[in-house]
Amino acid sequence: MLKGKVLVAQGGGPTAVINESMVGTVIESRKIPSVERVYGAYHGVSGIVDEEFIDLTRETTHNLEMVGQTPCSALGSTRVKPDEAYCMEIFKVLKAHEIDTFFYIGGNDSSDTLRILHDKALAENYDLSCVHIPKTIDNDLMVNDHTPGYPSAARFVALAFAGVNADNRALPGVYVAVVMGRHAGFLTAASALGRKFDDDGPHLIYVPEVDFNLDQFVRSVQEVYNKHGRCVVAVSEGIHDESGTPIMAKLAKEVEKDAHGNIQLSGSGALADLLTDYIKTHSNISRVRGDTFGYLQRSFLGCVSDVDAREAREVGEKAVQYAHFGDSKGQHTGSVTIHRTGFYSVEYHLTPLDQIAAKTKVMSQQYLDDSGHDVTSKFLLYLRPLLGSGFPESARLRMNRVPKLLNS
Amino acid sequence: MLKGKVLVAQGGGPTAVINESMVGTVIESRKIPSVERVYGAYHGVSGIVDEEFIDLTRETTHNLEMVGQTPCSALGSTRVKPDEAYCMEIFKVLKAHEIDTFFYIGGNDSSDTLRILHDKALAENYDLSCVHIPKTIDNDLMVNDHTPGYPSAARFVALAFAGVNADNRALPGVYVAVVMGRHAGFLTAASALGRKFDDDGPHLIYVPEVDFNLDQFVRSVQEVYNKHGRCVVAVSEGIHDESGTPIMAKLAKEVEKDAHGNIQLSGSGALADLLTDYIKTHSNISRVRGDTFGYLQRSFLGCVSDVDAREAREVGEKAVQYAHFGDSKGQHTGSVTIHRTGFYSVEYHLTPLDQIAAKTKVMSQQYLDDSGHDVTSKFLLYLRPLLGSGFPESARLRMNRVPKLLNS
Repeated sequence: MLKGKVLVAQGGGPTAVINESMVGTVIESRKIPSVERVYGAYHGVSGIVDEEFIDLTRETTHNLEMVGQTPCSALGSTRVKPDEAYCMEIFKVLKAHEIDTFFYIGGNDSSDTLRILHDKALAENYDLSCVHIPKTIDNDLMVNDHTPGYPSAARFVALAFAGVNADNRALPGVYVAVVMGRHAGFLTAASALGRKFDDDGPHLIYVPEVDFNLDQFVRSVQEVYNKHGRCVVAVSEGIHDESGTPIMAKLAKEVEKDAHGNIQLSGSGALADLLTDYIKTHSNISRVRGDTFGYLQRSFLGCVSDVDAREAREVGEKAVQYAHFGDSKGQHTGSVTIHRTGFYSVEYHLTPLDQIAAKTKVMSQQYLDDSGHDVTSKFLLYLRPLLGSGFPESARLRMNRVPKLLNS
Repeated sequence: MLKGKVLVAQGGGPTAVINESMVGTVIESRKIPSVERVYGAYHGVSGIVDEEFIDLTRETTHNLEMVGQTPCSALGSTRVKPDEAYCMEIFKVLKAHEIDTFFYIGGNDSSDTLRILHDKALAENYDLSCVHIPKTIDNDLMVNDHTPGYPSAARFVALAFAGVNADNRALPGVYVAVVMGRHAGFLTAASALGRKFDDDGPHLIYVPEVDFNLDQFVRSVQEVYNKHGRCVVAVSEGIHDESGTPIMAKLAKEVEKDAHGNIQLSGSGALADLLTDYIKTHSNISRVRGDTFGYLQRSFLGCVSDVDAREAREVGEKAVQYAHFGDSKGQHTGSVTIHRTGFYSVEYHLTPLDQIAAKTKVMSQQYLDDSGHDVTSKFLLYLRPLLGSGFPESARLRMNRVPKLLNS
């Protein structure tokens, strides 16, 4: 059961609803009489080692509710992944503050951090409950039907494509937009939900699950352009050739690597510019434009799926309930997972950390169209309920043509 | 007065509310008993020459209302600027279809098109009423307090910066976002409305009205970074050095030119990448990210200021009323202009075309801070009411620090 002091932290890339999970954890913990204090670690595990704690028991409910509706980790985040020595530093601080329950909100890296931490705690005879609360716009956590943060980012991407498709109809040409996603194409695939009419874009959707071929890409763009007089393309930042080499690395002169040794894909417009340049030099199409949705897709203020917000809050609440009461098997440590039970309803389970940690879920074949550049109706059906209520609808004028008198 | 057939068209870059103006024009025209038909030219003046007319009298009010709420020119747009020969082609088609009233929704290029057309019509003894309906996200039309389309784009930019500022707080570093605006910095300046707390970004705002110096830029970024441990920057795509050379042209290896001979600024992430590269190579800051808001800021579905939508509708309605009844001086030709009368209220006038046509309004000195990289409180007061109701608010946790026990 929860008692004394409990700790919550946020790790990895922010999302639009990550604070709902934090607020759910805090408010639910504060309801438990044996809980004296709820601490927040400032900037994830590095905040623990630096002993940077915020007393969330002294925060008002009203402000917590407002923070819940604000995008991006209010407790700050980190990309740090603890090794054994780092774990010992963490335990030292937790012991000093008499904390034995740790809620960590994050993606597969954060769940792996929790797995390492919990294993090390067992080995050290330190009684530490670790509950991972899922979060990632990439939607790439195993076991989960989907992950909090993804639906709101998907809503942003779908609305963005509905808009740029209308823009591209008004001033025709080729338009390429790069969407976040290193290994999983779920977020890029969400662009398909921006379509309404048969000839709406995105006409081509490229995800990392399908090998990318530059020549075939230009041929497909030219085909769509010949048919519709325009072409809207959605591309995952993580697209790669058949050897697995990122297209970004193939086309760019130099690439930056992140803390985990991965090529830095976000925070630059390079891939979109490289692809539009390639189209310009390999086709006769003159108006070719590219955008990179960048950080807006995970942080934009005021673009939240209400379904996402509700679920993000619930996984925070459930984490506290599992840590306090244990799950049906008496487990107090694990990852809260989301399971779809109807159209549309979900239930939550506590899943062993090693089933989530450091693993990546990608789009299943049933969601990918045989063409290699589209999604299936099964995917549309999977995603639609997640986008939430009040999804804006676009409309067109009916083409009641006036008979020509001169040029007929 | 309006009679027989009237024509409406849309020109230049799309906005989120340009269809409200079109729908206002169509619905108001359809109320006038002497109007037999309301035609829409498909893709602006080129649609007239190609005799591509859509009969908007046969469109339902319900669908018109839905189209009004959809971003981007539903009638299609064009970048064509007619010369004398082109005007003669236009007259030929208008005569054949017995059209003598033309409503053109657009920016300063479109109003110049209308001026040329109207002058040529006078010279040719062709009785043509031309009413320009203002539209531009750049907010750069003379006489007008502001222009429809700008408030919604400004709302997008402000919300985007509120979000990326929170993202940058969670994972600190330098973040540079490029905003549309070749000569006028109004849209980039809107980023200031995303700030709430004292240390919120954007910490630096660069507009084309102020000469840009790369070395001073890096120094300012380093100063903010030293103070806050992070730095968020808003940059207009049109920034230039003291000689007037665009920074884009200075740093890029090759530049594309548009139909009017201007350097193509939008549709590429080049400027953001060039600026972030420059910071990386001229400072010791490691995490430097750049985004280009691109076409989303003018086309995003579901990010509309209700004040903007209302005014965009009204200028369409007023255009029809001026064309039908004439203004107080009996004029039936001109540009509908918006004038602020209170905090917040507006009224509309019909202004001679040559006061608007091909002229560009930029930010006045009273809106620009002496530092050269911020706006004044006068600008905040000018813009705030335009952003409309229901503007989402961000919140922070209060920093109730827990006393350190080990590292104190």
